[in-house]
Amino acid sequence: MKRREFLKGAAVTASAAGVSTLAAPAIAQGTVEMAIVSTWPRDFPGLGTSAQRAAARIGELSEGRINVTYYAAGEKVGAFDSLDEVAAGNSQAYIGADYYWKGKHPAWAYFTAVPFGLTYAEIDAWMKFGGGKELHQEVAGQFGIHPLQVGNTGVQMGGWFNKEINSADDLKGLKMRIPGLGGDVLAKLGASPVSLPGGQIYENLVSGAVDATEWVGPWNDYFMKFYEAAKYYYYPGMHEPGSQLTMGINASWWGNLSKTDQELITAACMEENAMQMAETNARNGEYLTKLINEHGVVLKEFNDEVYDAFYEAAEEVFDETRQHSELAAKVHDNFAAFRSDVGRWMLAAEATYLRQRNRVSGVTL
Amino acid sequence: MKRREFLKGAAVTASAAGVSTLAAPAIAQGTVEMAIVSTWPRDFPGLGTSAQRAAARIGELSEGRINVTYYAAGEKVGAFDSLDEVAAGNSQAYIGADYYWKGKHPAWAYFTAVPFGLTYAEIDAWMKFGGGKELHQEVAGQFGIHPLQVGNTGVQMGGWFNKEINSADDLKGLKMRIPGLGGDVLAKLGASPVSLPGGQIYENLVSGAVDATEWVGPWNDYFMKFYEAAKYYYYPGMHEPGSQLTMGINASWWGNLSKTDQELITAACMEENAMQMAETNARNGEYLTKLINEHGVVLKEFNDEVYDAFYEAAEEVFDETRQHSELAAKVHDNFAAFRSDVGRWMLAAEATYLRQRNRVSGVTL
Repeated sequence: MKRREFLKGAAVTASAAGVSTLAAPAIAQGTVEMAIVSTWPRDFPGLGTSAQRAAARIGELSEGRINVTYYAAGEKVGAFDSLDEVAAGNSQAYIGADYYWKGKHPAWAYFTAVPFGLTYAEIDAWMKFGGGKELHQEVAGQFGIHPLQVGNTGVQMGGWFNKEINSADDLKGLKMRIPGLGGDVLAKLGASPVSLPGGQIYENLVSGAVDATEWVGPWNDYFMKFYEAAKYYYYPGMHEPGSQLTMGINASWWGNLSKTDQELITAACMEENAMQMAETNARNGEYLTKLINEHGVVLKEFNDEVYDAFYEAAEEVFDETRQHSELAAKVHDNFAAFRSDVGRWMLAAEATYLRQRNRVSGVTL
Repeated sequence: MKRREFLKGAAVTASAAGVSTLAAPAIAQGTVEMAIVSTWPRDFPGLGTSAQRAAARIGELSEGRINVTYYAAGEKVGAFDSLDEVAAGNSQAYIGADYYWKGKHPAWAYFTAVPFGLTYAEIDAWMKFGGGKELHQEVAGQFGIHPLQVGNTGVQMGGWFNKEINSADDLKGLKMRIPGLGGDVLAKLGASPVSLPGGQIYENLVSGAVDATEWVGPWNDYFMKFYEAAKYYYYPGMHEPGSQLTMGINASWWGNLSKTDQELITAACMEENAMQMAETNARNGEYLTKLINEHGVVLKEFNDEVYDAFYEAAEEVFDETRQHSELAAKVHDNFAAFRSDVGRWMLAAEATYLRQRNRVSGVTL
């Protein structure tokens, strides 16, 4: 896809009030209009409220100099049209999950989540100090987008099923809502993955148009009421171990901002990146209990046999992804090398510590 | 300790250049002088460089309106005098580890790290959405300090030992540098914990004044050259599973800032809170390998028997901590309830996922 021209909508205008040169402090003077579209429904707990908080924070840090107008999914364009909207310059930024654009380039998926990928702490390390940010900029740059991390929802649950999954055979023929490369893994195992925006999943699950779905985790899933149509809630998800959200900004518009306005937007996004993860982790324990106690949800762990099958299929998916283009191969190889390095550290750190702490303090599922 | 009066050093002055009322935009106008002292040596990789980055970021986001002067440990006051320096209003803020002040009040320790405490993702969730921030403000408020999270170094290694630790008996008589409540746990098991600032550990370890030490993790520890005096490097540390750093700000000075300046400082601190964790995780894998391959360090895992002894001792320490005061008990009980909730979620999420991913992809220590 060619990089679109910067067409309209980027309003970097001098403040109406004149500022005398004598008085001019070293601060950005112009007011800036910034329309943000989103892939999430308005006020949706977790994803929606996080995106709205990031948008508001830009206004707050700039004391309103950057005047943000936020449009939830469907209010200006549909969720899946957000990238095109911003690439065309009709809005200045989107907040969403970049793996929604994997049909345009498979490397987009690595900056949200890929199967057997990185947890929140790992992907944040990769983005900020492992080369991830630069690769994200390279992929997004091909679409005229400057990307910033703006949220993370952590390790996802495996999803909602209306039957037990005891072997890979149980996945055959299953119609499951699962986007990104995780969907491709399911396809390798004989399932039929579909991609649906959040606002359309419930009706499809209730009508039987899909048999199973994943979404995020206990807190976000609670409000989707999936428990009305599927009782088995599997963990851990292999498909999205640390789903990162992006603020994708029109690159031409970004380039015309003052350095300070760029840094204020960056700071707001980085704050929200950690904020959403903190909120999600804080709420997930509470809502997991609610799902089980209030709605009779049955928690199930994927067994080793199923996990082995997932991994074998994921390796095939990655082989195909690498073959798409040099850029896709470069992104994958950088990701895979980082996963191996950081994974070794996480084994000595998080994984071993959490095992010991839970063992001695008697925390069980 | 009484809250000290705001004495001097807080210079909130109008900009020298006059700004006409007509031109006045809705922005903070005054320049603000902010002296920050730190508990870390200048340019010390990890802790020092992170603190310096946070200080610089405040200047950057405010376009120099907040004029920060940063003093590393010893440049204005000694590391352990940082709290008194800021409480007295001689400097406006410190960056450091709040468990250094546990002699003044044991509840300070909970906002850095406590034995069997919270990992980075967990403590960030507690601080931002579990009541941790409000409790931190309550404890720090008694000393005239407004606290902000400003960094985290994650799960610590268990430390450097010059002999194997196969049972709790092997800890008896050991002189070990280990601050905070972790030191109290070691004392219960018959060891002699000492607290030394970073700049003094190496000489004490080499001279034999201490037999063992913990510091942070592979990356930070590498530059301390502990491997020259102790070859056994144990994991996982029970004493600091997610060590948080604080920017402790003189509360009177903070109260005189504009709302926007408060938010800009907050944003800079929140950015660095995630940034330091990302940098530490990104480097730890690499430096763990260097320590083993270049310096013959022997990696050892604490066994279950040692961990059981640690936990039993930690429970005694917590009982004593709770008895210190109502506030200490309130902080502990809030922490413990959150640990149990979030721990259950982390078991379904991070812990189970990392185990499966490492198993199928063959990552081992």
